[in-house]
Amino acid sequence: MSGRGGHRDTRRRPAEPKRERRDLGQQVEGRQAVRELLVAGRRRVHDLWLSTDAGDAPVVAEIAGLAEAAGVRIRRVPGDQIERRARTGAPQGVVAFAAPVPTAQLDDLLDDTRAFLVALDGVTDPQNLGAVMRSAETAGATGLVLATHRAVGLTPAVAKAAAGAIEYLPIAFVSGIPGALDRARRAGVWCAGLDAGGEQSLFDLTVADAPLVLVLGAEGRGLSRLARARCDVVASIPMHGHIASLNVSAAAAVACTEIARRRAG
Amino acid sequence: MSGRGGHRDTRRRPAEPKRERRDLGQQVEGRQAVRELLVAGRRRVHDLWLSTDAGDAPVVAEIAGLAEAAGVRIRRVPGDQIERRARTGAPQGVVAFAAPVPTAQLDDLLDDTRAFLVALDGVTDPQNLGAVMRSAETAGATGLVLATHRAVGLTPAVAKAAAGAIEYLPIAFVSGIPGALDRARRAGVWCAGLDAGGEQSLFDLTVADAPLVLVLGAEGRGLSRLARARCDVVASIPMHGHIASLNVSAAAAVACTEIARRRAG
Repeated sequence: MSGRGGHRDTRRRPAEPKRERRDLGQQVEGRQAVRELLVAGRRRVHDLWLSTDAGDAPVVAEIAGLAEAAGVRIRRVPGDQIERRARTGAPQGVVAFAAPVPTAQLDDLLDDTRAFLVALDGVTDPQNLGAVMRSAETAGATGLVLATHRAVGLTPAVAKAAAGAIEYLPIAFVSGIPGALDRARRAGVWCAGLDAGGEQSLFDLTVADAPLVLVLGAEGRGLSRLARARCDVVASIPMHGHIASLNVSAAAAVACTEIARRRAG
Repeated sequence: MSGRGGHRDTRRRPAEPKRERRDLGQQVEGRQAVRELLVAGRRRVHDLWLSTDAGDAPVVAEIAGLAEAAGVRIRRVPGDQIERRARTGAPQGVVAFAAPVPTAQLDDLLDDTRAFLVALDGVTDPQNLGAVMRSAETAGATGLVLATHRAVGLTPAVAKAAAGAIEYLPIAFVSGIPGALDRARRAGVWCAGLDAGGEQSLFDLTVADAPLVLVLGAEGRGLSRLARARCDVVASIPMHGHIASLNVSAAAAVACTEIARRRAG
């Protein structure tokens, strides 16, 4: 976490093409993720591999139909070939190869008067990252902010856990979350951290329907000291048992849903 | 799902010892799960393996101290030996061997006038099962209801994802969820299903602070037809994006937290 505000982020931008060669959702596995890739139709799909053992589940037929309609080349290959090519444990007989997801610019996301961004401060587990993206998207979040250096990329495991959310949720990569929060505050967007040690209840969060960045900390460690210092408020989810906290993806689901509820109400 | 009510469950009970030889949390891996095993002190811990490479993280020292105080035999072994013995991908240098978690009887759980049970109808992914347990425990749920046949056992992966919740959350195994719901209704306990196709919003659930079983369906397929038919109400979490649903553990976290909020309020 070395971000020191907008200037540094701007200077770092030339480094982004390097990330373009890394994982930006180019390989998508699993039925739901591939289905949404094709339904969204927002990026070119080069190839679709379907297992000849995939059976006749309706969703597989639907995927084939969507791919055909979009002119995507379909290769029917034996299941073991899919497994060898797959980078997740359970590709469910479906692997797609696509153009990278387009990335967003943080400043554009902050310009939205209804901004509801989710920033991840050091979340490294692909399942968690994907699950947070799915929860954010279903809650109507307008974007996701990820640190280039510490966060996991958009690997097949992330794309699969996101269940299609990477097709819809704009994602901005920044050099550091604290710097991004500085920029958010200068843009008049509230920064609300979520942490087991937060000083107020999520349910009393008065800024829930203002332009907002919800900041989630890493598994185990929670918010970093720097990110926490940049938050206008740090909220927690009230705990009623012995275990001290929810896991980060569960906490994200609860917080995103609560913010959506307050905004809809 | 072949449960047909209380009689069948009763007749099936002799089958439970077979499950006792299966996974009931006897092997616990990961720092948080092992820490809670020792903090809770509710079951005998036979052995604690600590990696000689585990470093000096405070939580490792705490685990060693707790084990020592409880008279648990500690074996310091090389990391690769831990990895070979581990059944999860990341034991974090800590594996404990313990007596099985005691199981609860459904009828006892239903007798609680503040009953807040979570029933899982076909959830098979260990990560999801563990995460649901963690969310349920932190929300103050009074028990978990699992189907013997279709649900995954309390494997090391489940225990790790539960992050200690298996030490505290009473768990009743039943032969089928629909039968368990029949018994709940006869006991005057409301059955509220959660499903993306539910007819009312979770946030309008009027029974949230009554004695309640929250019923969660399987990944992907949602509630089974039979379980759904046994529910007094089926609620859904309002969706504000393109993706049609949350994953089961995220949905569980949202629903459990909402029920806890309504009960506390």
